[in-house]
Amino acid sequence: MQNKKQRIAAMCAILAKNPNKLYSLKFFQEMFGAAKSSLSEDAAVIKRVFSDMGIGRVETVAGAHGGIRYVPQMPANVRMLLVKELTEKMRDTSRILPGGYMYIADLFCTPYYVDGMAQIMAEWFVGAKADFIVTVETKGIPLAMSVARILNLPLAIARRESKLTDGSVFSINYLSGSSRRLQTMSLSKRMIKEETRALVIDDFIAGGGTVKAICDMLAEFSIEVVGVGAAIVNRYPQKKRINGYKAIFELEELSETKIEISAC
Amino acid sequence: MQNKKQRIAAMCAILAKNPNKLYSLKFFQEMFGAAKSSLSEDAAVIKRVFSDMGIGRVETVAGAHGGIRYVPQMPANVRMLLVKELTEKMRDTSRILPGGYMYIADLFCTPYYVDGMAQIMAEWFVGAKADFIVTVETKGIPLAMSVARILNLPLAIARRESKLTDGSVFSINYLSGSSRRLQTMSLSKRMIKEETRALVIDDFIAGGGTVKAICDMLAEFSIEVVGVGAAIVNRYPQKKRINGYKAIFELEELSETKIEISAC
Repeated sequence: MQNKKQRIAAMCAILAKNPNKLYSLKFFQEMFGAAKSSLSEDAAVIKRVFSDMGIGRVETVAGAHGGIRYVPQMPANVRMLLVKELTEKMRDTSRILPGGYMYIADLFCTPYYVDGMAQIMAEWFVGAKADFIVTVETKGIPLAMSVARILNLPLAIARRESKLTDGSVFSINYLSGSSRRLQTMSLSKRMIKEETRALVIDDFIAGGGTVKAICDMLAEFSIEVVGVGAAIVNRYPQKKRINGYKAIFELEELSETKIEISAC
Repeated sequence: MQNKKQRIAAMCAILAKNPNKLYSLKFFQEMFGAAKSSLSEDAAVIKRVFSDMGIGRVETVAGAHGGIRYVPQMPANVRMLLVKELTEKMRDTSRILPGGYMYIADLFCTPYYVDGMAQIMAEWFVGAKADFIVTVETKGIPLAMSVARILNLPLAIARRESKLTDGSVFSINYLSGSSRRLQTMSLSKRMIKEETRALVIDDFIAGGGTVKAICDMLAEFSIEVVGVGAAIVNRYPQKKRINGYKAIFELEELSETKIEISAC
């Protein structure tokens, strides 16, 4: 019914819109009424183009439950430009707020930046075989959700204050690394399954206290943390409460007059 | 350098990954080193395929700042299946929580459901010419961000409790429609620009008090609310504090033993 060009256009759109989702060749056979051999040829063309453009791998999974899957990547030059643009934006001293804080909420709410940072993080952890992503409300939610979308995994959101609509929650009290204030974090019991693998995504790591608290809470459920990723990590304190995290940017200095931040 | 098949594959991937973003033909010319006439032909093939599959329009914008743009749509049969699946999931009585609440946080954190609901909402409002999306933390954030992504607009998140990292905030106190409790909501001043157009996206509308509070707050900045969309609206109270909202599902009954919900 459809010619090769049209099949390729359709397959590309479906794969690009649904990263890390496995599609059986049978799915495309039924969609296009084409022979399996033609579809394999189409998939080979797409694989080659995506690889040449640096926008990702098209993986073939063999076997009865096999198929093809699109694992997105960001071309090296695009990543470089994105990181440069974000660094410049974050260095803007108009972002300095009283009390040694910086305003960055806008960057974590703009799809282009959020999806770009999420793509960088997804590439770090695509091999980690996580079962779900976990983050703490609020500012990191869009970023964590974008990572979840790219890796095709569910997200669990830990809350500062649990709501009636969470059902039974598991809570932990901890000292936040920066302010040494007692904080509470809750995770809905329905959100998590025992003995699974979690990937922790957050917008900012200062002392690591919040991430440490998540890890401690997950450990109670025999959930293994297979990765920790943050968009920004504060250089100080240099000794964090957690190890082995990855970050895109390091905040080196933040005073009332200056922001020094650079790519890690 | 690349043949027609390859160019089409590449253009489809770029368009599908970046909904509602305008790409000049010059952008593709530089990418592929192809003639403008060839690229126009390629765009026509893609337009036809996307339209035949029901996955969206490829719009051509004329003029010096023109180009092509992908406006995604969900095929009618896919939408029907998604709404049916979600309805069945939400009717599951194991979701009933003490006090007449239901647990639905999982559905609002699963990319497939979130992106599906967001796509339905994006189609309602794609013509509304909004400048940004606004939502209230926490549960609706992934949904609102997904709508923002599809419409290629920034998101502003109103908070229950403002943080130091928000900078100056504008706050409003209001009575929530359901619990008649005094609530506070804050929006960072840096997040919004006067005399723009906002689209309000929320996961759940009960009495409409929260959305009304957002609208009142935005009105103070001469921001026009050009649409209000929710995933679920409660049938009661039938008289809401706002008018003209759209919802995907209506929650008809929620008791300790029964959930009745259906597509609007």
